[in-house]
Amino acid sequence: MDTTRYRHLSPVELRQRIRQGELSGPTAGLANGYAQANLMIVRRDLAYDFLLFCQRNPKPCPLLDVTDVGSFDPRRAAPGADIRTDFPRYRVYRNGELEQEVPDITAFWEDDMVAFLIGCSFSFEGALLANGVPVRHIEDQHNVPMYRTNIACQPAGTLRGPMVVSMRPMPADKVVRAVQVTSRFPSVHGAPVHIGDPARLGIADLAKPDFGEASQVREGEVPVFWACGVTPQAVAMQARPELVITHAPGHMFITDLRDEQLGVI
Amino acid sequence: MDTTRYRHLSPVELRQRIRQGELSGPTAGLANGYAQANLMIVRRDLAYDFLLFCQRNPKPCPLLDVTDVGSFDPRRAAPGADIRTDFPRYRVYRNGELEQEVPDITAFWEDDMVAFLIGCSFSFEGALLANGVPVRHIEDQHNVPMYRTNIACQPAGTLRGPMVVSMRPMPADKVVRAVQVTSRFPSVHGAPVHIGDPARLGIADLAKPDFGEASQVREGEVPVFWACGVTPQAVAMQARPELVITHAPGHMFITDLRDEQLGVI
Repeated sequence: MDTTRYRHLSPVELRQRIRQGELSGPTAGLANGYAQANLMIVRRDLAYDFLLFCQRNPKPCPLLDVTDVGSFDPRRAAPGADIRTDFPRYRVYRNGELEQEVPDITAFWEDDMVAFLIGCSFSFEGALLANGVPVRHIEDQHNVPMYRTNIACQPAGTLRGPMVVSMRPMPADKVVRAVQVTSRFPSVHGAPVHIGDPARLGIADLAKPDFGEASQVREGEVPVFWACGVTPQAVAMQARPELVITHAPGHMFITDLRDEQLGVI
Repeated sequence: MDTTRYRHLSPVELRQRIRQGELSGPTAGLANGYAQANLMIVRRDLAYDFLLFCQRNPKPCPLLDVTDVGSFDPRRAAPGADIRTDFPRYRVYRNGELEQEVPDITAFWEDDMVAFLIGCSFSFEGALLANGVPVRHIEDQHNVPMYRTNIACQPAGTLRGPMVVSMRPMPADKVVRAVQVTSRFPSVHGAPVHIGDPARLGIADLAKPDFGEASQVREGEVPVFWACGVTPQAVAMQARPELVITHAPGHMFITDLRDEQLGVI
């Protein structure tokens, strides 16, 4: 979908168009300067473990907002928005298996559901670009490559599993700046978790990502790895919960929070 | 108590002496450079609300660690330590009322308890001093003055209430540096919440703190206010939970985490 004519709309205007079904595609490039969020909806009986998992693993699971039990209003990230309608596309999982993709989850909403909005790398990629650090998968216009690693997340109750990372190759002389820039944004994954050697993370072949599409690491470039928001979904699904709802990949929630507001300094 | 001969012991050595009852006083000045922690123990039925309250109010409630349900091992902050014995002094509250102070809570421990370790201002005060910012209540050797404010915390479930702040007066030309220094440490309350005017926080008289002892604001000085770890205790007690255990004021837990490790950059 050509999103050019939507590029200068505000988050609230965009959410309205998404709610009405006028905008149904990926949200990359929309509302530049505003943080977008991943979604994870679980029932109350899993919410404590999930909240604790996020608390213990803030790099892969940086929380932007958690709704009250049964409430679909993300009051802190976008007051007045509706979690059930304001993502362009959702995925419904039963017992850990994808059941269907839908543009609206009003019919699936239950009174004991809790929605977790999790920070997304779009925010720190904007900061990288603004600082002269190139982002290969944006140049190549495909999804970022993601890999399962040998880094065990801190378990929480029934939830345990490996960290998933995203990889961005960059010229060696940009790596220090990339660390500095992303360190400012812990609520959108923060500083890298590793620089340089995929084997140290248990990644056998960078050309074969577990999710997304491969980015080539060119001569003189270094692969840099960040904790990825796919981690909490992957970990939660392993516990095969009866019902979980997430966003569809790339179809994010546009918050009212400016990226810069998330900077810790 | 004269703690001079304990000053150069490591956190693990200090916790051992505390556990054995050899050290039973306030922990200020011990294990310099290591983070100390406030304690809040609740039963599992209140733990979700409390964890969510901390997530929504990270300035007054920065979490250093949360134990597994029923576990007294703070695995991330001090693996192998024992939450039930390694604070010099505890307070046991029933239905929101202080029942007793004890040096050991082994007899009170229950299988559904969760312990929250909350960052403490000792860490950022060390950083202030190291940066040439004087800390009045340390010079005067009394407890920091604390005030209830008109800032409402973000409520979570049954938990709601005003933010409590601590106040440190300082020369006007040190204020910017104080903001910079404490911004680096969000997990020990982070940057100030207000600079200058107590009335804006609803504080009628700086000479009459709600907790601790007053510090004089001298000619040319500015009062600077930080979110305070007393907040979560005050808020939880309002809900009158059947059983809550905290540390006794000033009698903190000495973690294995170095203050500098808590710096976000």
